[in-house]
Amino acid sequence: MNNVGRDARAASRIIASASAAVKSDALKHIASAVDAARGAICDENAKDMAAAEQNGIDQPLIDRLLLNDKGIDQMIEGIAQVEALKDPVGEMSDFSYRPTGIQIGKMRVPLGVIAMIYESRPNVTVDAASLSLKSGNACILRGGSEAFHSNQAIAACVTQGLEAAGLPGATVQLLNTTDRAAVGELLKLHDYVDVIVPRGGKGLIERISSESRIPVIKHLDGICHVYIDAQADPEMAIAIAFNSKVEKLAVCNALETLLIHADIVEAVLPPLAAKLQDAGIELRGCERAQQSVTMHAATEADWGEEYLGPILAIRIVDDLPQAISHINEHGSQHTDVIVTENYTHSRAFISQVDSASVMVNASTQFADGFEYGLGAEVGISTDKIHARGPVGLEGLTSQKYVVYGHGEVRHR
Amino acid sequence: MNNVGRDARAASRIIASASAAVKSDALKHIASAVDAARGAICDENAKDMAAAEQNGIDQPLIDRLLLNDKGIDQMIEGIAQVEALKDPVGEMSDFSYRPTGIQIGKMRVPLGVIAMIYESRPNVTVDAASLSLKSGNACILRGGSEAFHSNQAIAACVTQGLEAAGLPGATVQLLNTTDRAAVGELLKLHDYVDVIVPRGGKGLIERISSESRIPVIKHLDGICHVYIDAQADPEMAIAIAFNSKVEKLAVCNALETLLIHADIVEAVLPPLAAKLQDAGIELRGCERAQQSVTMHAATEADWGEEYLGPILAIRIVDDLPQAISHINEHGSQHTDVIVTENYTHSRAFISQVDSASVMVNASTQFADGFEYGLGAEVGISTDKIHARGPVGLEGLTSQKYVVYGHGEVRHR
Repeated sequence: MNNVGRDARAASRIIASASAAVKSDALKHIASAVDAARGAICDENAKDMAAAEQNGIDQPLIDRLLLNDKGIDQMIEGIAQVEALKDPVGEMSDFSYRPTGIQIGKMRVPLGVIAMIYESRPNVTVDAASLSLKSGNACILRGGSEAFHSNQAIAACVTQGLEAAGLPGATVQLLNTTDRAAVGELLKLHDYVDVIVPRGGKGLIERISSESRIPVIKHLDGICHVYIDAQADPEMAIAIAFNSKVEKLAVCNALETLLIHADIVEAVLPPLAAKLQDAGIELRGCERAQQSVTMHAATEADWGEEYLGPILAIRIVDDLPQAISHINEHGSQHTDVIVTENYTHSRAFISQVDSASVMVNASTQFADGFEYGLGAEVGISTDKIHARGPVGLEGLTSQKYVVYGHGEVRHR
Repeated sequence: MNNVGRDARAASRIIASASAAVKSDALKHIASAVDAARGAICDENAKDMAAAEQNGIDQPLIDRLLLNDKGIDQMIEGIAQVEALKDPVGEMSDFSYRPTGIQIGKMRVPLGVIAMIYESRPNVTVDAASLSLKSGNACILRGGSEAFHSNQAIAACVTQGLEAAGLPGATVQLLNTTDRAAVGELLKLHDYVDVIVPRGGKGLIERISSESRIPVIKHLDGICHVYIDAQADPEMAIAIAFNSKVEKLAVCNALETLLIHADIVEAVLPPLAAKLQDAGIELRGCERAQQSVTMHAATEADWGEEYLGPILAIRIVDDLPQAISHINEHGSQHTDVIVTENYTHSRAFISQVDSASVMVNASTQFADGFEYGLGAEVGISTDKIHARGPVGLEGLTSQKYVVYGHGEVRHR
């Protein structure tokens, strides 16, 4: 593992000063290599799929594991999107003169070496590799055991693409073990690794956060809220709440708790509840919600639950401050939405809800790097330090100060 | 300690949404309170000074502890400078429409609760309080035992100023203990504290970094370099190297290792060495430096030493890449300078030296928040994650995503 770290650090020095053209070239070569290796990738994926079925893994996980031609097309499209992004490295900004005569500003620079630890979905291998390459970082990838063969096949294409562009293969290293102990060893490489990005279940992320002495960009729960204000357009409110919950269930940006202002319950809840129940969603409501529509009773625990499935908690509130307090107290600072036509309420919600993404009149399901125009994402951070929300190229870089002088010295 | 944390969190909710006007008002009241309490502050400071002398504390530390009328003037001036800065909270930027119709951008927000752990200098109490107040954060301050009485007197003025502006006194809490165990308890308050900023000796910072489960913005060594390029103006090079070393010795932005291109040694080193030796600086050089000027021999250990005193290491290099490698290998990623008239060399140095501040033709001693126009600083970060270099208001804030929709839903 120490050699992996040392090689990554050495490669990071080269990739950090690679030109935008060379990095683009590498990304194009990686895309071609993936395209050319479709057969091999699908064969290797079939081994993982067979093992998953044999091990009785859940259907949703098996779905995420599958790589067919459409999945490979999406991977290639993802690489092209990252390639097309503006190169963030070397971006210089905010230069101004100080009274002493020096001119000061900032330059965007890579972080160095990123270690990414993730589970099941093999397309993460390509997303992580292309984002870290584009942002001038070396990376060490540790995929999950379920996707072992698929990941190895994809990583071979990445190495091939890097080398075709004249870059060191060690710019992206996929560990060839999925041993749990390897994660522990990785977390000890402070001399070689600048940041750890875990992506996966809560258990994985909590373990890494508590063990790591290297900074972690982490994403914990997504307990997302939609608040339907008294002055919402009822039709819009129904569409947004429905889409936020139903469009995709097992994702961190799915709606988990719906808050409705008491004055608009009758206009909104009965038709919305009917649509949701038709779609197979179980509703769990507070007492007042149950008076409006027949549904299960919610307990206190429901307000803090990330269902990631066909259940929705519903609470009636008396005013905007109550909605905001509920979200700040029970939410996970991920993504929260207000539906309203009232200007003052929209401003208050945006300012006072302490979450990575706050939205007015849009679906929670928009909260991801691709929809935000970041090209792709390595995860959605619920931290406040460094990167918050979807983490793309900018989250994988830092800024240094640049000072231009003319021989100035300081007199204290 | 748990109560301190809870009170800080509660205050942080209020200060986060306090208007720019209210925060300015509080800063003005704090400045007035400090001005009015000059006598009391000096009396309390005298107690600390007496104890320090009794305990046989080093003269440099005693100098940093002293608060006289001039020191109090500087504190008041510091508050006025922070008050005059643009309020960072709520700054909105980068809004653009996505093809889906949503408009997305960012809003700058406070981090929440900042805990600052620092040693000796009592003026840090006021700097930390005003920066955290201006950036909409609550803070918990834990000063050093040497400045106990001074800090308590200053904190009383801060509380008075906050309350005069109608803000909770708990927005800034100074712990009334300097017990070591209190630091350990503080590091455990993950529910209440968002970031820890240690400021002080290496031992303190290493202890905190290794114990803390809360993110730390830390500043370790300042092993700063000046590289005198073959194409430097010799007179400018001498002035910059001399000022970088001598202007102030015991600061993290003081020069520790001087690198000189072999072609310019004879033009630069003899006159510079004479000036430095006249100023009482001991020189430790590589073999080639010793051939040019009589000086002590440097050992390998000297390249990694932060002297913080009247010693300078000197090494002759053959070209720019050698200088850059030396800095990246032996430096501490704090502040490094090239003196050159060559455009290409200046560009290469800026891009390739991996430090928080990289400078061309200016003294290392400029590397601080005040000189950079940040008003003041809570420290100089040698981390890459979150804040790098002098940490002012921006380093004490984060950004959240704001999405403006018109009823958009997502179709996957």
